[in-house]
Amino acid sequence: MIKQISGGVCAAEGFQAAGIYCGIRKNKSKKDLALIASSVPAHAAAVYTTNLVKGAPLTVTKTHIADGTAQAVICNSGNANTCNADGIDIAEQMSSLTAEALGIRADDVVVASTGVIGQPLSITPIAKGIPNLATALKRDGSGEACEAIMTTDTKKKEAAVAFTLGGKTCHLGGIAKGSGMIHPNMATMLVFLTTDAAVSAEMLQKALSGDVQKTFNMISVDGDTSTNDMVAILANGLAGNKEITEEDADFTAFMEALNTVTVQLCRMIAGDGEGATKLLECRVSGGLSEEDAKKIAKSVIASSLLKAAMFGEDANWGRVLCAVGYSGAGIDVQQVGVCFSSAAGEVTVCVNGAGVPFSEELAAKVLHEKEINILITVGEGSTAVTAWGCDLTYDYVKINGDYRT
Amino acid sequence: MIKQISGGVCAAEGFQAAGIYCGIRKNKSKKDLALIASSVPAHAAAVYTTNLVKGAPLTVTKTHIADGTAQAVICNSGNANTCNADGIDIAEQMSSLTAEALGIRADDVVVASTGVIGQPLSITPIAKGIPNLATALKRDGSGEACEAIMTTDTKKKEAAVAFTLGGKTCHLGGIAKGSGMIHPNMATMLVFLTTDAAVSAEMLQKALSGDVQKTFNMISVDGDTSTNDMVAILANGLAGNKEITEEDADFTAFMEALNTVTVQLCRMIAGDGEGATKLLECRVSGGLSEEDAKKIAKSVIASSLLKAAMFGEDANWGRVLCAVGYSGAGIDVQQVGVCFSSAAGEVTVCVNGAGVPFSEELAAKVLHEKEINILITVGEGSTAVTAWGCDLTYDYVKINGDYRT
Repeated sequence: MIKQISGGVCAAEGFQAAGIYCGIRKNKSKKDLALIASSVPAHAAAVYTTNLVKGAPLTVTKTHIADGTAQAVICNSGNANTCNADGIDIAEQMSSLTAEALGIRADDVVVASTGVIGQPLSITPIAKGIPNLATALKRDGSGEACEAIMTTDTKKKEAAVAFTLGGKTCHLGGIAKGSGMIHPNMATMLVFLTTDAAVSAEMLQKALSGDVQKTFNMISVDGDTSTNDMVAILANGLAGNKEITEEDADFTAFMEALNTVTVQLCRMIAGDGEGATKLLECRVSGGLSEEDAKKIAKSVIASSLLKAAMFGEDANWGRVLCAVGYSGAGIDVQQVGVCFSSAAGEVTVCVNGAGVPFSEELAAKVLHEKEINILITVGEGSTAVTAWGCDLTYDYVKINGDYRT
Repeated sequence: MIKQISGGVCAAEGFQAAGIYCGIRKNKSKKDLALIASSVPAHAAAVYTTNLVKGAPLTVTKTHIADGTAQAVICNSGNANTCNADGIDIAEQMSSLTAEALGIRADDVVVASTGVIGQPLSITPIAKGIPNLATALKRDGSGEACEAIMTTDTKKKEAAVAFTLGGKTCHLGGIAKGSGMIHPNMATMLVFLTTDAAVSAEMLQKALSGDVQKTFNMISVDGDTSTNDMVAILANGLAGNKEITEEDADFTAFMEALNTVTVQLCRMIAGDGEGATKLLECRVSGGLSEEDAKKIAKSVIASSLLKAAMFGEDANWGRVLCAVGYSGAGIDVQQVGVCFSSAAGEVTVCVNGAGVPFSEELAAKVLHEKEINILITVGEGSTAVTAWGCDLTYDYVKINGDYRT
């Protein structure tokens, strides 16, 4: 039984969080420094962007959690600390200052940065801010931490669940940021997850790496894989369950809880894509390999033409077929079917690779909703995958036409 | 000596063209049917989209020119004749009607369609229009034919050159359409080229296939590989040169003439991308493989974030680095340099993978121009490739938010 709860990244026992404005941004009304801390050292795992241009914080975090242990996460927004000559040094300083303020080891700190690439990040406001941030840590600080990692995000992204392992109640929750430069490949954007379940570092990495293939790797806002993507999870074991050390029933239950939270965060990220007015969910099912189904789902939600059509609430299904055709999936086009569905109903627009007559009136109603499902079938079979995206709007162009200033 | 001339697809001896409104479109002021004809049978070659969803006309054309011969091109706009159950039949009828009107063989007709996908194409207006179109053929008909194949294009795209082979003056010219759904992979959009040079069918295919790798395959407007892309060339031999049958000096001269025309058409297509206000030219050079250089150039010009930044005239070079990093090219990021240049000057923004101080004032001037060069160097070496794209604008969203109506 997985139960939705509140608390986000602090839903799990022993975790506190805080977010403050420290002075990285010009806009003082926007928090820019977040901290998440566990009362005891936790097992840690993370996945990172596959972009060859990597933010310095990722390199530092990778070293820090190589031993499978972490106790805190420090993250700033407003500057990605990427493509800077002193990037590694700054990220290490962020870790040391955090460790000092919390009385923990510097190599138990996960460090992350998000914002503009290629502008030097001054340590001064961060050094000044960290002691205040440590003092501000609280059990209900998830929302503030979430605000502090936002960039062009318009909504806070938090989720949490309670579940049971061997009779012990466990909790797992997280916060996420991400709105543009989102086209996951291995991992994407920033997501910090915490749990009080006891899970070995090895199994924690296995769970996370497995989950992102179905969740964060299946989102696209604009086709641009970020340089600073990271999903990190801390498991401090305070729930008192028997530590998960193999792929047993408890591991399966943990994976389900994890997936419940990550799917919610995925939907929030895609639905809050830069300039987005609609969440697009593309489900591909039928008699094809999972790999081909994923190629198709990602190709469709990443198509600029289809995204613009969804913004215009135009049932231009030819663009779905076009994206299926160039996806790289080796399928028989004559077996492709397409439906659009939403809270307003469902409309079948293509059967066996060719158009079928449909009610434009119903299609307009279906596409007028805020959450649109694009259902693609390829023959008969039990494969089923989902990808999430959003529409392409004037505001996407506006937001990205002048991001730096 | 290659000399720019006028005449487009009729610049070569023996070619005539025409374009009329026949009734496929609702808008009577927009021509929708084009014809190009050679006075004698010509050697023919073509390349086609790699999209698995292929327009019916491509399948028919492939069969027709399998023998290396063609004499006419018939092309409609306003409907792609793709994903229609009767598509092949309609494309064959278009060929037969054209052949009948011209007194040539039906399998010597190249047939093409462009427009919306998945709406049945009625043969009625086409059947009515073809005899008039055949009557309208003229030596200066390139512009009219070019108009008739346009969809969201705002400008006619014609180019032609005169050159010499073995003392004989030859001509090569062409017309193109393409504004959206442009992300070539093997070939892209519709381009019809004609020449009076004598070239064997085999060498003509070799020349075309080689050329598109450096030209039409290096353009992107929106990352969407079309279902109806085709580049076809007809060579009728009327210039009287000794037929090119091997990779000799004449073949090299022919390739140069071909490339001169195709590069011009590429720049026209990218610069007239849907909603575009700027032509982007990305040149990648240095010590890397041509394959890696192409991956980088295409990744950069296809990045939605970079395209939006160029629209905003914002020197956000971090987005260039980001696109380099996810391009798939196996390069050392520490060796990457980036300059922006245009008629207004040149500004270096990144050296050895990290930002360098630059004049924002100069950058603003450089990016205010209509043609922007993005120059990327990766270490020392002689590799050099070019890709073409355009900025991402409000109008792209507007044009594609409601294309069908």
